[in-house]
Amino acid sequence: MAANPLASTPVALRIDGERLWKSLMELAQIGGTPKGGVCRLALTDLDRQGRDLFIAWARDAGCSIRIDAIGNIFARRPGRRDDLPAVQTGSHIDTQPTGGKFDGNYGVLAGLEVLRTLNDADIITDAPIEVVVWTNEEGSRFVPVMMGSGVHVGAFSLETALAATDRDGISVKEALDDIGYAGTDQVAGQPVAAYFEAHIEQGPVLEDADTVIGVVTGALGQRWYDITLTGVEAHAGPTPMPLRRDALLAAAQLIQTINGIALDNAPHARSTVGCLDVFPASRNVIPGQVKLTVDFRAGDDDTLLKMDAALRAACADLDARGIRHEIQQVVYFAPQPFAAPLVEAVREGAETLGYSSMEVVSGAGHDAVYVARVAPTAMIFVPCKDGISHNEIEDAKPEHLAAGCNVLLHAMLAQALLPAQA
Amino acid sequence: MAANPLASTPVALRIDGERLWKSLMELAQIGGTPKGGVCRLALTDLDRQGRDLFIAWARDAGCSIRIDAIGNIFARRPGRRDDLPAVQTGSHIDTQPTGGKFDGNYGVLAGLEVLRTLNDADIITDAPIEVVVWTNEEGSRFVPVMMGSGVHVGAFSLETALAATDRDGISVKEALDDIGYAGTDQVAGQPVAAYFEAHIEQGPVLEDADTVIGVVTGALGQRWYDITLTGVEAHAGPTPMPLRRDALLAAAQLIQTINGIALDNAPHARSTVGCLDVFPASRNVIPGQVKLTVDFRAGDDDTLLKMDAALRAACADLDARGIRHEIQQVVYFAPQPFAAPLVEAVREGAETLGYSSMEVVSGAGHDAVYVARVAPTAMIFVPCKDGISHNEIEDAKPEHLAAGCNVLLHAMLAQALLPAQA
Repeated sequence: MAANPLASTPVALRIDGERLWKSLMELAQIGGTPKGGVCRLALTDLDRQGRDLFIAWARDAGCSIRIDAIGNIFARRPGRRDDLPAVQTGSHIDTQPTGGKFDGNYGVLAGLEVLRTLNDADIITDAPIEVVVWTNEEGSRFVPVMMGSGVHVGAFSLETALAATDRDGISVKEALDDIGYAGTDQVAGQPVAAYFEAHIEQGPVLEDADTVIGVVTGALGQRWYDITLTGVEAHAGPTPMPLRRDALLAAAQLIQTINGIALDNAPHARSTVGCLDVFPASRNVIPGQVKLTVDFRAGDDDTLLKMDAALRAACADLDARGIRHEIQQVVYFAPQPFAAPLVEAVREGAETLGYSSMEVVSGAGHDAVYVARVAPTAMIFVPCKDGISHNEIEDAKPEHLAAGCNVLLHAMLAQALLPAQA
Repeated sequence: MAANPLASTPVALRIDGERLWKSLMELAQIGGTPKGGVCRLALTDLDRQGRDLFIAWARDAGCSIRIDAIGNIFARRPGRRDDLPAVQTGSHIDTQPTGGKFDGNYGVLAGLEVLRTLNDADIITDAPIEVVVWTNEEGSRFVPVMMGSGVHVGAFSLETALAATDRDGISVKEALDDIGYAGTDQVAGQPVAAYFEAHIEQGPVLEDADTVIGVVTGALGQRWYDITLTGVEAHAGPTPMPLRRDALLAAAQLIQTINGIALDNAPHARSTVGCLDVFPASRNVIPGQVKLTVDFRAGDDDTLLKMDAALRAACADLDARGIRHEIQQVVYFAPQPFAAPLVEAVREGAETLGYSSMEVVSGAGHDAVYVARVAPTAMIFVPCKDGISHNEIEDAKPEHLAAGCNVLLHAMLAQALLPAQA
């Protein structure tokens, strides 16, 4: 086969921001809520309608469609050399019960817009390009979350995923059958050249820094804990301060220490105490017991281990105050650095196109974080209003969404075109 | 009438500790629980049985019985001069659902033991002596708590108290009628020379100090608050530490400040955060709102006001961290100092009898705290095991109970005997 006449990405090439926006708004009508959000839970009939619409659009754009056994959809635009591993992008179109229009949907439709743009420009890439719709990223109806990408990379088995049931006892397998998306293709295991995922940031960093493109260097690792502090329950009136063993006062000290542990590991370390329950929870009784949760995140395992040690030391310090503690780690996700060459491709894309950009980390889970286990991966973040997501008021600016899509286009093209022969 | 031949308290006079203990154990069988506690809720048939037993014992001891409209029982041992205001003692025999044998019951039976001891010694006091059983001190079945003494002193009206209903909709009036304790006597308003109440401490101070007699100088005043702190709920993963407005972290700081406010007003000031609720209470969501309660206690109003100001300033300081606050005072009880001459009588009683003693304050409410509004009042505390009360494992040593009763005897006699004529 002759070399691709298009030996490098045409610098002037741009996606159609209006078309992207229009597609986002059209998809958002399926499950649209009165408050302007979207409720399209995984594997419901609304999900089916969304999937059908995507597939229709992808077929119109010349794609072939494969569906695997967990319902992941792969829309493939052939390249000049179909023996080359595909360059993929994707995300999900299921939403939270009170979800927004952009979380997930943007990544899928940005991929579609890349395909349409290539069609308009009559560009044939060397490697095939695929847009993937991963099943049940949100985990609202079925757990585990990030189910489609999790099965894809072997984080858990297909059988585990298919057996998961919703609150009504309906299994993933039944739900897939019901909506006609129980595919047969065995897609996992095929080599992938690169996977990109464009996503709204779901955090406040880009907006706060007035920056358009987040060059995502990786996903934070996570360690979650359950902690129980036990003191002595006593009557608030007759018990003088020096004779108390107040579990809530100890918890208050611990919460401040936990906050300090993240600050000591700036800028990427994060710590959150999200739940705290007091026993017996009576106004005039000194709390005898407190249960609380800790969510630690950091960019590398060394930092997470350092934070773990600091947390355990802080708990042990409470012994001297007569407060017993139990601590149990309940969740561990390894930090997931993204592929340096792809991260560089995103950065270069933003530079070439003249968008402000900054390195960020993904604090939350995304399909890309799983995919990174089996393929070179990177993500592109764009700002969302007030950092709010998983909420019907989730919002993003059309120009930011277009910018992220342009970066995606150029980063994918850079991977999908073979270098010109010397 | 000739002067009392007994012009001063006979120093050698002692109560019968074994008889006191035996009476306590006998009364504790009425409503006795398998764990050794007592469940004898106010105005139940068990309460009636307890009242009947007390009245039988008091009649045996030569007392006349009056019952007022809220069911308070006054057992009166006549003096040489029945025109003199009575010297009273008393407490309550209703218990918490999982109450102990001593809370309240000790004060009533210590009074009975004083009467029996005077009978044994053929002592006729100048002033009459009365032992009072106050209705529904605990407030477990009917609120307000300290109902009998509260009506007695006009803290709230008889009508309010009679109209109070339990969870089954039975009113205090109906319950009094049912057990035959709806009295007709209008007792309140009669002058009282002195009121003493012996009680287990319900706190750890005496035991911690290895001291037998607590000379109670008064009851702490109380100010209770509801506080709401509002920050911004956000996803724990994507939100870096500097961009957070974490309501629980702010609450943790406030809890430590609240603790410090009591320490700054040592030794009697107390502060307790007994309830704390986090919203939305999800492991990986930064808390957007926290609601908490504050219980401040101090020996005088100036200190309470100082603590109030410090609390409001600490809340206002949170504004700078982007945390809004609402604070509402929901309870105020004035500090209640006891009558200095009676406090002195208790101290002298302990000294004369050779018991170790120390000044303490009552952090909890007692009938005596209400009675102090209308009559000179003092209390005598004795240690209870581990400071535990309102619990079936509540325990006290017979020798401590006897010591407190001896102090009660001598303090009451000192009030009930007229000084010898010069």
